Amino acid sequence: MRVATFSIGSERRVGLVDPGGVSIAPFDLSADEATEGVVALIRRDGSLPATLSPYPLDRISLEAPIPSPRRNIFCVGKNYHDHAHEFSQSGFDSSAAAGAVPKHPIIFSKVPETVIANAAKVLIDPRVSTAIDYEAELALIIGKPGRGIRPEDAFQHVWGYTIVNDVTARDLQGRHSQWLVGKSQDTFCPMGPWAVTKDEIDISDTAIRCFVNGDIRQSSNTSRLIFDIASIIATISAGVTLRAGDIIATGTPAGVGVGFDPPRYLKDGDVVRVEIDGIGALENQVEEVRA
Amino acid sequence: MRVATFSIGSERRVGLVDPGGVSIAPFDLSADEATEGVVALIRRDGSLPATLSPYPLDRISLEAPIPSPRRNIFCVGKNYHDHAHEFSQSGFDSSAAAGAVPKHPIIFSKVPETVIANAAKVLIDPRVSTAIDYEAELALIIGKPGRGIRPEDAFQHVWGYTIVNDVTARDLQGRHSQWLVGKSQDTFCPMGPWAVTKDEIDISDTAIRCFVNGDIRQSSNTSRLIFDIASIIATISAGVTLRAGDIIATGTPAGVGVGFDPPRYLKDGDVVRVEIDGIGALENQVEEVRA
Repeated sequence: MRVATFSIGSERRVGLVDPGGVSIAPFDLSADEATEGVVALIRRDGSLPATLSPYPLDRISLEAPIPSPRRNIFCVGKNYHDHAHEFSQSGFDSSAAAGAVPKHPIIFSKVPETVIANAAKVLIDPRVSTAIDYEAELALIIGKPGRGIRPEDAFQHVWGYTIVNDVTARDLQGRHSQWLVGKSQDTFCPMGPWAVTKDEIDISDTAIRCFVNGDIRQSSNTSRLIFDIASIIATISAGVTLRAGDIIATGTPAGVGVGFDPPRYLKDGDVVRVEIDGIGALENQVEEVRA
Repeated sequence: MRVATFSIGSERRVGLVDPGGVSIAPFDLSADEATEGVVALIRRDGSLPATLSPYPLDRISLEAPIPSPRRNIFCVGKNYHDHAHEFSQSGFDSSAAAGAVPKHPIIFSKVPETVIANAAKVLIDPRVSTAIDYEAELALIIGKPGRGIRPEDAFQHVWGYTIVNDVTARDLQGRHSQWLVGKSQDTFCPMGPWAVTKDEIDISDTAIRCFVNGDIRQSSNTSRLIFDIASIIATISAGVTLRAGDIIATGTPAGVGVGFDPPRYLKDGDVVRVEIDGIGALENQVEEVRA
């Protein structure tokens, strides 16, 4: 099923998107539960609440499926071969000592408040960064908590998937060596348009694409991940207990702005669209602000 | 003032520690507010609640001052000259390309669930890491939210300070290039014993020490920070809005286990004690587990 978090008036709801993508039927959840977005459903594991009368999709505002993650979003760096090469050659890869293709997953985080909905603006401030880049990524959502999860059990812990754009300030990413600041700038994690349960897609073979102003920039497939989802979950959970609602962005393929010569960074007015087959499309415009 | 989060029976309270450190007077806060620990006081900015009858300190259990931070803890790496050198020579510094002394602050994070109280056990699992190290650190607690904070205004945004032990799995820190996983192992952030408001200490000249089993290992002073607190706050907040209750650990001085030849990592039964003048002492024992 496809599950969206949305608002109608000042109310946040969580609802089931119909197969045609024209209407959304809110689940019968309390206002308190709906605050957590799709995590409210995860907490009800096994007993899906009833749905109420549907709204036309064009009458509601989509929010990010998990609008306020409970802790930073886990992210995997350099996890597609072709991107690992382009990034290592960019001059911004402070982890380059490890070589172009990492021997172990590179795991970093983005603060939860980076999360914005489909159609919300990515705000860029040229006084803070002049090298802002897009990164189309499949993100997984943890359902069942766990520690020491074996790769062969990993999918038991996955609830579903969504799309994120891991927007990155390349200059800050390089300058600070650890990537947190360059990845955590306000509004730098568009997420959505909704989440899908894990039965909806074959995650070992799913196409992912990214367009900037309609021009295709990234086109790959999850089959080309260096570290697959099972091994990412096993790596993190070896000593870090994973929790329901945790989000893990799995890395971006080649074609990011910094991979071009000269680099093609995002500028005021650009529209970034990320598509993942079986999930949908996440589209956000960039707006320059001087805060 | 010194403010502790504590439990008595199954109830969490936040209280004022008396100057002699023998009793604690709970603030008149709702159970809901007390859940957040000292953040409950920060949210009441300017109107301190009344205190109720004090308990003897030996009748209560201290909890971490902020037991469940709202997002990952911000941490600064290699922020004392002598430690920057020892770590760069350790072979585990995947950021070494930047040289021993960083030109810009290195900012990374630890997941909130690493936080444990004074006297709680740091759990180590030799199947996950065999290179576990201590790092004595001063941590600051943000009071007033802000973005684009100028260094000269930074202290207006600081509510106070506490002590953390930024426990680190060196092997994982090196292996994964980005430090999140090596820093975020369950129980790897002892915090406490309590927090102090910023008026309690002269943060430009405060002694910090660390003992393992009574032997002194680290002894330094905040005057030796490479990037001072004002510049750390300005750096992060340039594009990342800081929020009330955010915690920023400011880095550790020389003397960590990996700086010795051979390294002196933590083992079952070791007791790590971190002292910061004007705050107090944070003491935790290490326990080996096989989860």
